[in-house]
Amino acid sequence: MQQYTVTLPAFPRGFHIITKYILNAIPSMPSIGLVNIFIQHTSAGLSINEAADPTVLTDFENSFNQFIPENQTFYTHLDEGSDDMPAHIKSSIVGSSISIPISNHKFNLGTWQGIYLCEFRNYGGPRSLVITVF
Amino acid sequence: MQQYTVTLPAFPRGFHIITKYILNAIPSMPSIGLVNIFIQHTSAGLSINEAADPTVLTDFENSFNQFIPENQTFYTHLDEGSDDMPAHIKSSIVGSSISIPISNHKFNLGTWQGIYLCEFRNYGGPRSLVITVF
Amino acid sequence: MQQYTVTLPAFPRGFHIITKYILNAIPSMPSIGLVNIFIQHTSAGLSINEAADPTVLTDFENSFNQFIPENQTFYTHLDEGSDDMPAHIKSSIVGSSISIPISNHKFNLGTWQGIYLCEFRNYGGPRSLVITVF
Repeated sequence: MQQYTVTLPAFPRGFHIITKYILNAIPSMPSIGLVNIFIQHTSAGLSINEAADPTVLTDFENSFNQFIPENQTFYTHLDEGSDDMPAHIKSSIVGSSISIPISNHKFNLGTWQGIYLCEFRNYGGPRSLVITVF
Repeated sequence: MQQYTVTLPAFPRGFHIITKYILNAIPSMPSIGLVNIFIQHTSAGLSINEAADPTVLTDFENSFNQFIPENQTFYTHLDEGSDDMPAHIKSSIVGSSISIPISNHKFNLGTWQGIYLCEFRNYGGPRSLVITVF
Repeated sequence: MQQYTVTLPAFPRGFHIITKYILNAIPSMPSIGLVNIFIQHTSAGLSINEAADPTVLTDFENSFNQFIPENQTFYTHLDEGSDDMPAHIKSSIVGSSISIPISNHKFNLGTWQGIYLCEFRNYGGPRSLVITVF
């Protein structure tokens, strides 16, 4: 079992493909295994989705903004700005970690799959990840 | 650690209980462990939910269609049909993998729990899973 | 690999921080590892989110009730009350298990992160968890 940390550069609000940052952080992989990638934040999340067409990323952002809107009248956690409380909710919807099987010393992803950083704050800053490889 | 692959038959759009396909793919389980089941697709997902009453499956489908609708005016990823972009979003909401504890050589699921394939495309075709057992 | 079970006391409907119940159930942790926490129920879930400001918990409850409402005309699974079918859907949205890296014999959570029980039933009763530590 090996563990690595990655600090992502600050990304703007939205969905971003970060597969290369993860791969660069792992010097070697076992022939069979599993990797868990965990984000140490409560207003951003990780997901796995389509990594080919960038229009998918924009549609994700607009869809999440529609079904978890800002400025709901019932929000009471307001101190950090109108993007903050929706960011917490969105991060629990996508989740704080992903797991990927390792086969033949590589991530065994499907053809179209890549790793997404889901940045839900307007200015979230650098984000810290913990990668655990079995 | 053992790893297995499963190709599910094509299921129609909707939520389907696939527990038996997973169990059939695993020849033996350790006394204590964990299994991770990963789907190699970006328009279908895996979940764990109620496996007793089939009306639950229909209500799931209708609810997901309501809060992530097709034909949103803001969608730009349209080439693969009106069911495609919502399918990507729904798959990130339920997630691309599930983990289940193994106890006494069996899945330690609750009484009502089963494994769901969440097929979000109208014609998704066969779906590939990677099962990793610790 | 170690496995533990926890029975949480009955919590009212809503989001609750249960980090201490999990920590109390684990007598010792490895220097590097991963913990998986699994809930054996289909109308409650687990998540990781902000553990500092209790207003976040209320906003979570109100938001989930808004985007997965009770009494939808299309619901057919009605026998267990109007809170039941939305509870199933919400539990698949947040998920039935979480994974947390272990570093230096402790959960390697971010500064603001805590473990949430997401209780989606009005009277869900005690909830059973299975904790697997690698």
